[in-house]
Amino acid sequence: MNTIELKTPYLIFVGEETREGFAKTGLGIVEWRRSLCKGQISLEGGTIDLGLPSMTIKEAAEANVGSLIIGTASIGGNVPEAWMDTLVEALEQGIDIVAGVHNLLKDVPRLREAAAKSGARLVDIRIPPNNIPVSSGKKRTGRRLLTVGTDCAVGKKYTALAIERDMKSNGMNVDFRASGQTGIMIAGKGIPIDSVVTDFVSGAAELLSPNNDADHWDIIEGQGGIIHPGYAAVSMGLLIGSQPDAFVVCHEPTRSSIEGWDDFALPTIQEVIERTTQIGKLTNAAIRCVGVSINTSKLNPAERQNYLDDLSKEIGLPCVDPLKDGTQRIIDQLSSEFDIVK
Amino acid sequence: MNTIELKTPYLIFVGEETREGFAKTGLGIVEWRRSLCKGQISLEGGTIDLGLPSMTIKEAAEANVGSLIIGTASIGGNVPEAWMDTLVEALEQGIDIVAGVHNLLKDVPRLREAAAKSGARLVDIRIPPNNIPVSSGKKRTGRRLLTVGTDCAVGKKYTALAIERDMKSNGMNVDFRASGQTGIMIAGKGIPIDSVVTDFVSGAAELLSPNNDADHWDIIEGQGGIIHPGYAAVSMGLLIGSQPDAFVVCHEPTRSSIEGWDDFALPTIQEVIERTTQIGKLTNAAIRCVGVSINTSKLNPAERQNYLDDLSKEIGLPCVDPLKDGTQRIIDQLSSEFDIVK
Repeated sequence: MNTIELKTPYLIFVGEETREGFAKTGLGIVEWRRSLCKGQISLEGGTIDLGLPSMTIKEAAEANVGSLIIGTASIGGNVPEAWMDTLVEALEQGIDIVAGVHNLLKDVPRLREAAAKSGARLVDIRIPPNNIPVSSGKKRTGRRLLTVGTDCAVGKKYTALAIERDMKSNGMNVDFRASGQTGIMIAGKGIPIDSVVTDFVSGAAELLSPNNDADHWDIIEGQGGIIHPGYAAVSMGLLIGSQPDAFVVCHEPTRSSIEGWDDFALPTIQEVIERTTQIGKLTNAAIRCVGVSINTSKLNPAERQNYLDDLSKEIGLPCVDPLKDGTQRIIDQLSSEFDIVK
Repeated sequence: MNTIELKTPYLIFVGEETREGFAKTGLGIVEWRRSLCKGQISLEGGTIDLGLPSMTIKEAAEANVGSLIIGTASIGGNVPEAWMDTLVEALEQGIDIVAGVHNLLKDVPRLREAAAKSGARLVDIRIPPNNIPVSSGKKRTGRRLLTVGTDCAVGKKYTALAIERDMKSNGMNVDFRASGQTGIMIAGKGIPIDSVVTDFVSGAAELLSPNNDADHWDIIEGQGGIIHPGYAAVSMGLLIGSQPDAFVVCHEPTRSSIEGWDDFALPTIQEVIERTTQIGKLTNAAIRCVGVSINTSKLNPAERQNYLDDLSKEIGLPCVDPLKDGTQRIIDQLSSEFDIVK
């Protein structure tokens, strides 16, 4: 088994958190995979409501919960002492603990002992699986779409999930493939691509979207940016190994420089299309862009539609905000490009 | 300290080896850094002669040897039982053991115990240092040249070392920077770039060639290939982080496909120049190719010079075989491009 696989269903742990912004992971899982979530659990003082039934650990165990997912960010990246009794109780009940905290669960002695005793797992979602091979470059069956971006944090995960959802509504054969922590919790499986040793990063991307039915689409969550001073190697590895037939560029229109790298101008959408096509041709000669996904939340309503219309004209492809418009126009483009019979 | 640093001088260990091809590491160290090598040590049956004085461990300790370098490849990547007494004796004498074996030195209990007792180190040269940051993209002082290639194993390390040697002969201020195992043993320091987690690979490349004098050149050993189905991400990370002012393309002219990836045609030298320039511009707008390094060992003497002359005309840059011609013509090109006063 070369991808992380989580046991479902989930109990989402939101601790003593009171700020929605720090519970994004939990909120994301509920938004995209409500059906995987049996319940939520808070500690004293916690006010986050994910809209799930509140459950004790005992109730979760009775409901056959497979994993307790840490759905909040803890300050400093450690497992706070106040969480410990609850997490240990879950492990004792045979429930896996899943987290993306910076300091590893398995380095906390109490958790490690409780897990060893019950056989439940501590799943540190930043640790890639072992034995990832170097990429082969061999063509795989099935179709693939990769979301890419002009920067980090421009909606690559959101766009991929929205495309999966809308393709499913169209009755298409499709799976979201997660390459980052929250994505893996949402999908229940995946590989944290940016944590893989560089020699093997394209090999990890190959494992992420294996052979599939001829009419099946993997919608692969992108990472980083192919024109990015920090993370271009991550994007390169994911692109080469994914062998995408199609890609969608994600963009935040009010950003002028790379976030966190102020000296670097944001690349244009057109530059990202050209660079992605050029590099992607190595493992898929027919790679093409099928649309652009814009996060318009910072545009005022008057300029929003004009911006999208102008951009569509300029790029010659559907430009949508998946949150507001859905992704049907991108799916229509994909269907016409690839002769998909719905 | 964010690079591997080896203690010098060296004692080169060649075990029971009889085949020169399996002692390439030892031979390479002697070829490029004879002055770092105090002696060699074989076991019974070993016939490799590196041209160094034979020494016992005791003599090496008396000669203040800092590291015993495993200069051969062992079958299977394990430390053979027959080596153990010699390695333990070295550790007891306070001599570090340095190796690139696949299975780690520190996972061998006898070695670990002997090292712990004496304070000598077990240096597994495939393990990058801890705490490598994400790359900043910030411009560093000094100049940098990176060797790149149309494939793996086309002379990127050799070319970088030859350029360093020849620039030194010109009285220039220059250092070879090692990004792979044998290179690190030769240089006495460096980072195994392909073993770094992808998020940090460009950050590792930044550490590898830090700020330096305005007239100083780092000659950086390249890895992989920017148009390679297995290792493009390694090359991307190294290119972005190195911020090279200049690069040299290395090529083996009888190869038609990527070695080990037979379905992939070898990219042309011109394609590698264009792609490297395009991607490298992100962190160094003035990046340019200054020459081509050809391994002509498989060409017959009659065609060799014609091939190089034709290629020089086609590319418009010096094309040399460093083994036969040296690299002076590339250095002349570099000097004229960068107004270097010798």
